[in-house]
Amino acid sequence: MIRELTVDLGDRSYPIYIGQGLLQDIAVYLTKHGISKASPLLVVTDSHVAKHHLAAVQQRLEQDGFRTAVHTVASGEKSKSLRVLEDVVTTCLQAGLDRKSTIIALGGGVVGDLAGFVAASYMRGIRFVQIPTTILAHDSSVGGKVAVNHPLAKNIIGAFHQPELVLYDTTTLGTLPDRDVRSGLSEMIKHGLIWDAEFTAWCEDNADRLVGLDPEALQYGLYKGCSVKAAVVSQDERENDLRAILNLGHTIGHALEAVAGYNELLHGEAISIGMVGAAMLSVRLGNPESVYTTTERIFRKFGLPTRIPAHFDTDAIMRAMMHDKKFNEGKMVYIVPTEIGKVEINKNVSADLVRDIVDRLKQEA
Amino acid sequence: MIRELTVDLGDRSYPIYIGQGLLQDIAVYLTKHGISKASPLLVVTDSHVAKHHLAAVQQRLEQDGFRTAVHTVASGEKSKSLRVLEDVVTTCLQAGLDRKSTIIALGGGVVGDLAGFVAASYMRGIRFVQIPTTILAHDSSVGGKVAVNHPLAKNIIGAFHQPELVLYDTTTLGTLPDRDVRSGLSEMIKHGLIWDAEFTAWCEDNADRLVGLDPEALQYGLYKGCSVKAAVVSQDERENDLRAILNLGHTIGHALEAVAGYNELLHGEAISIGMVGAAMLSVRLGNPESVYTTTERIFRKFGLPTRIPAHFDTDAIMRAMMHDKKFNEGKMVYIVPTEIGKVEINKNVSADLVRDIVDRLKQEA
Repeated sequence: MIRELTVDLGDRSYPIYIGQGLLQDIAVYLTKHGISKASPLLVVTDSHVAKHHLAAVQQRLEQDGFRTAVHTVASGEKSKSLRVLEDVVTTCLQAGLDRKSTIIALGGGVVGDLAGFVAASYMRGIRFVQIPTTILAHDSSVGGKVAVNHPLAKNIIGAFHQPELVLYDTTTLGTLPDRDVRSGLSEMIKHGLIWDAEFTAWCEDNADRLVGLDPEALQYGLYKGCSVKAAVVSQDERENDLRAILNLGHTIGHALEAVAGYNELLHGEAISIGMVGAAMLSVRLGNPESVYTTTERIFRKFGLPTRIPAHFDTDAIMRAMMHDKKFNEGKMVYIVPTEIGKVEINKNVSADLVRDIVDRLKQEA
Repeated sequence: MIRELTVDLGDRSYPIYIGQGLLQDIAVYLTKHGISKASPLLVVTDSHVAKHHLAAVQQRLEQDGFRTAVHTVASGEKSKSLRVLEDVVTTCLQAGLDRKSTIIALGGGVVGDLAGFVAASYMRGIRFVQIPTTILAHDSSVGGKVAVNHPLAKNIIGAFHQPELVLYDTTTLGTLPDRDVRSGLSEMIKHGLIWDAEFTAWCEDNADRLVGLDPEALQYGLYKGCSVKAAVVSQDERENDLRAILNLGHTIGHALEAVAGYNELLHGEAISIGMVGAAMLSVRLGNPESVYTTTERIFRKFGLPTRIPAHFDTDAIMRAMMHDKKFNEGKMVYIVPTEIGKVEINKNVSADLVRDIVDRLKQEA
């Protein structure tokens, strides 16, 4: 069974296909969505994904008449740099990519963000296709936010550049390490927490099936997660207001990743802690205690961290937050859950309160 | 007297102001166009322009309550690199630029392209203002094309990002070296050649006044040049078709710049040769000989080069052209003048014919 949904953005609308074995028909999907065989394609992937999926994808593309170049980057966040971007552009030029060419991002969030920003900026913008191979990427592959990191800040150099389509072949998820599975599910739970109490409850009830990669549960969860993302992005493509709710848990989460040098904590782990922090903060602002207890219970059920490791320095975390981009004219903007399935954008959260929360997240067991 | 025109792009429309001494009122213009004092500004400039104009601009901004950081790059094309872009972003982060901040490009085309691409990509896009300080920049500051270079190709990494306004203070042009004056006028003549025979004749008749920086002639010429650019861009912002006519002379021109290492020839000099080449090619395609003789006569009158220096290697020029982006699915697209004031986009020019023209441009005195 193949699930399909649409990200509704006027003339930049695009479909997301979710199903087992979709990549066997990759050429059909590309052709259906107007990807030309006359201009060369570039597949961007990472060394880990390349090992498992590149040969099959490349073979299917070439046997169906797509001229295909490949650029493989090292796995991990360090590939989201301007230096690697320049290398990918070198490959684009050497392979003769022109304005009608397409870049295919085959991989997780790092590959999608990097390849997407190459597509956004090469010749001032060419087409691209997202083929997420992680659970985490159900979030990053939808919505057109693409970027690379700067040594001082994550995702600070980028663009809004929507893909032509997203092809989610759930069979690729079978090779994910357990820790990456849980990390990815953290974004799925986030989509429930910000938008849909029923889906949140479903996630909690199906934690074991999801962690165990049960195909049916996974496909439904990804479909629901992508649906929330698509609904939010359709209403606010460029993050003028509503889209900010997708950043639940990310203020603390990004700061933790920055302090850890993008290494110690996976993204989903960092925002798991961040979402528990946001729920703590919510209670401090007068919302019911259950927002916090429920949030924490869910993340624990998925085996995700809910506390900041004690060796993280609070000052360093706060400094990293000041460099992040969820600030507007000096005031701190915070996404606060008001109940399960609902959040508000609070533009007046004091840095002192956030610091208290960070301290509490470090101290409590 | 202040001349004003509008680049008409729906909700991205913006004004161009041209006049003597405009920068004295920079704060008034910024405020009028919604630039906020609550968020810090960044002025990006180069070492040459900084010497002449930075102190005055910065002083006026600060005395009117704008918090202003400055990033000065080395003069010249080499600053249009990803490495320099990363440095500018460092300054943005250190100065605390947020999503409501504005970047001011104070300088010529290099500064405008670099600062504009920083503005396009910092936090996925913030506002920017163009303050061109060269004649050449009357072209590059209008239309929203921003980019940096890759070691293998010019302007290959960039975006379409429109400024909030363009402030053209013609007093800043007084410090330009004579060679830069002539080079800049080459783009002005181009705007006549592609769109307006009457303006072309006016340019020829007023060559001496223009080269001598006569204020009235300069202001009129810039106004007319910007008007052509604005008219073309308004009809085709993202270069789907019409906008390509602005590339008259640029196919050969860019290749010459690439082969010369962006050093030996100024941009206006390179496209002067390129426009003469396009006129030669036009005659070869059956258009009247006068297209060529008139074109060449005008550029000679402005003291601009009309031949390729003999030591340039034809093979290298042709290779550089293959890396440039005026190619579509393997065919060579060429902007061909059909009479003075009119061009066509010819999508079927053979590489052999272009090679002939390059050879002829090298051999004839």
